[in-house]
Amino acid sequence: MLESRILDQLKTIVGSENVATERQDLLCYGYDATQMEFLPDAVVHPGSVDEISQILNLANAENIHVFPRGAGSGFTGGALPKGGGIVLVVTRLNRILRIDTENLIAEVEPGVVTEQFQMEVEKLGLFYPPDPASLKFSTLGGNVAENAGGPRCVKYGVTRDFVMGLEVVLPTGDIIRTGGETYKGVVGYDLTRLLCGSEGTLGIITKIIFKLLPLPEAKKTMLTIFDSIDGAARAVSTIIGNKIIPTTLEFMDHATLQCVEKRFNLGIPEIGRAVLIIEVDGDRELIETQAARIQELVRPLGLVECKVAKDAAESEALWKVRRLVSPSLRDVNPDKFNEDIVVPRSKVPDVIRRIEKIQQRYDIPIVNFGHAGDGNIHVNVMIDKTVPGMEEKAHQAIGEVFQAALDLNGTMSGEHGVGLAKQPYIHLELKGAQLAAMQAIKKALDPKNILNPGKMFPVKS
Amino acid sequence: MLESRILDQLKTIVGSENVATERQDLLCYGYDATQMEFLPDAVVHPGSVDEISQILNLANAENIHVFPRGAGSGFTGGALPKGGGIVLVVTRLNRILRIDTENLIAEVEPGVVTEQFQMEVEKLGLFYPPDPASLKFSTLGGNVAENAGGPRCVKYGVTRDFVMGLEVVLPTGDIIRTGGETYKGVVGYDLTRLLCGSEGTLGIITKIIFKLLPLPEAKKTMLTIFDSIDGAARAVSTIIGNKIIPTTLEFMDHATLQCVEKRFNLGIPEIGRAVLIIEVDGDRELIETQAARIQELVRPLGLVECKVAKDAAESEALWKVRRLVSPSLRDVNPDKFNEDIVVPRSKVPDVIRRIEKIQQRYDIPIVNFGHAGDGNIHVNVMIDKTVPGMEEKAHQAIGEVFQAALDLNGTMSGEHGVGLAKQPYIHLELKGAQLAAMQAIKKALDPKNILNPGKMFPVKS
Repeated sequence: MLESRILDQLKTIVGSENVATERQDLLCYGYDATQMEFLPDAVVHPGSVDEISQILNLANAENIHVFPRGAGSGFTGGALPKGGGIVLVVTRLNRILRIDTENLIAEVEPGVVTEQFQMEVEKLGLFYPPDPASLKFSTLGGNVAENAGGPRCVKYGVTRDFVMGLEVVLPTGDIIRTGGETYKGVVGYDLTRLLCGSEGTLGIITKIIFKLLPLPEAKKTMLTIFDSIDGAARAVSTIIGNKIIPTTLEFMDHATLQCVEKRFNLGIPEIGRAVLIIEVDGDRELIETQAARIQELVRPLGLVECKVAKDAAESEALWKVRRLVSPSLRDVNPDKFNEDIVVPRSKVPDVIRRIEKIQQRYDIPIVNFGHAGDGNIHVNVMIDKTVPGMEEKAHQAIGEVFQAALDLNGTMSGEHGVGLAKQPYIHLELKGAQLAAMQAIKKALDPKNILNPGKMFPVKS
Repeated sequence: MLESRILDQLKTIVGSENVATERQDLLCYGYDATQMEFLPDAVVHPGSVDEISQILNLANAENIHVFPRGAGSGFTGGALPKGGGIVLVVTRLNRILRIDTENLIAEVEPGVVTEQFQMEVEKLGLFYPPDPASLKFSTLGGNVAENAGGPRCVKYGVTRDFVMGLEVVLPTGDIIRTGGETYKGVVGYDLTRLLCGSEGTLGIITKIIFKLLPLPEAKKTMLTIFDSIDGAARAVSTIIGNKIIPTTLEFMDHATLQCVEKRFNLGIPEIGRAVLIIEVDGDRELIETQAARIQELVRPLGLVECKVAKDAAESEALWKVRRLVSPSLRDVNPDKFNEDIVVPRSKVPDVIRRIEKIQQRYDIPIVNFGHAGDGNIHVNVMIDKTVPGMEEKAHQAIGEVFQAALDLNGTMSGEHGVGLAKQPYIHLELKGAQLAAMQAIKKALDPKNILNPGKMFPVKS
């Protein structure tokens, strides 16, 4: 509970209509896409960067923890107010401030929904490639804070690659600008990219300058079914080895295909062990040539079937199998842990085989799909929390999955971040002086450990 | 002067043949591409990461400053041992450790020369795009430390965009790994990109993992001459606005053309006020289409002449005008300050006009050329140091040039960094809490201010 004089100060800063302390309001801001829940003491909805700065000044003076939050769509609890404090919701800052078609940049506030931004720039013939699965509701501030990815990243890069500059309220309440309106810029440390993916622990993003691209003229979608996981993986290497970098190279393993087929009966051949959805984009003629070349390249690799979409409607139909994955998974078991390991792309078959062994050892269904082009695999550990002991077993299995990725020179997470969910495993990846350097940076920018404390890794104030 | 017991310790670490204290040796490592010179107390050539770690441990224990150095080709004094101490040369670490054609990554030591690396990956059909002008002698470690750019960055991005992971010796002597072999990765803070462009103040880079691309099939070079600077600038916007992102968009202003013409008589029409060298690369057929389209687009913009290279030899001939710029400049005046401001690309004509006014006001020749595609202009302030007062006047003029770039939402430096040379102006760009955040990070990672002290911005130990 916050003292009433502090609540009064918050109300003075943001207006009393923008401070909530009723239980039903607190409940709405205590959860995210994990299955965790923590109630804050108050929820505030500031309307400007100055109000955010004042809230952090107050928080520092009174030693109150502040948890920045966008749409709350994160998979690792990065926005959850564990230990209590103030949830600071940035969704009132939701304007697209400008789209500069001459310099191919846009300036936005953090509360803009990703898909809405994409649609606005596309109207002008421009393109913002990062496409996290949550794009219909996640916000750009959250995308930057988590360094969001998505299927198109294999060709275009991740959110970080499109952030040119930021306005940020530091944990101390100071407002700073980082980077700017030019893509090149080497004056001072790269605070812009340090903040990307810092999960709301180093500052609250209040403005973002994005780099945009010209919108590709056309795209072409293919669905390819292989008789082995190695065939699909070799297809990925072969395509890229032949100098074609597709926009997306989405992969589904046998377990995933079985789930989707059992539930929706799409007619995937029984012999199919892995699916790749391959999309190329760009010049209309070039992508026709590329699509033909891709079919030629993958044919000898155990190709069972290849469907090529002739138009947008057919493309949508091919993507259907991918979109039906999530609803199908619930048939396996009601609860899931959704991890997102990455390995160098040539090691995808190896890590899938290791995961199969882990699954057998723990007798827990694990279903894998994801972005084969950059080796980013969504590992879905399917459990039933009502079965005694199953959740604990799942956590052990996940630890082994992470270790398998790390043993193959990979990482525990390519998109979701650490937050609270992956902290029990963080010591597997971040060690000794590397972790100490990160902790020292956090301490340097947030001496009282006010901002989103307890996230990513432990830090003492 | 270092005490002899410390020299003995250094010799024990790296071998006595790798420690130099003779004046002629110190002279060789006390200069760079600026006209500054500072003598170190000793020069050491470690042969391994462990030796570098031991040197930094010793430096911390004894409070000795350490200045990491690659090829010493920097333009801002970033490697210069101002105040004395140990110059730590990394050029013995010069192996390309592996080039992984399946995952399109390479692992190298910092002392590899940029062009040598490019040639090796190109032999395998791969591509490392960053192309600083110094690539024939600069080293990859220095490229990362300075976040080097080059003409091709408009399409492909800067050095930072190709760095996936690092091995680094922190100022404290601790050896850490950052990032890794996967392009996606969001576990912990992005130390990789924090180190890119940190100018050797936060760590000594001992290994680099680079992302590579498939080598483009072909390229096509065009030289276009315009009757006004605005025409050339509109050409840049028009080409990009029409969804063609050329590999390079190199620009030379009227003063530059006059220098080159006067000295080398290349036959540039007198009416020509600006030149753009435009290069496109990629699919052989597509670039033919793009080259034709570019000619069509730029024709109405005051195009005086357009030459299109038919083959590699003709392409080389077109680039000649650009390569002759530097030797021509010396005819204007013997000494130059070579700055590299950046503005949003639509503001290039505006900043050039402001620079012309500054030149008139100070009566000092200023010659501009550079990378118009990303608004990165090399501003060459040509002086004669033997003329009393001219150097001081030049410094004032440079301050105004920087302010002009900043007023147009640009930056003081896109490629060269701050080092020592730009420190007198740093307060124009980095202010208050923004600068304080950077200073706090430096202090967090280098509490005794041992590593490359006095560079970029002032920090107290």
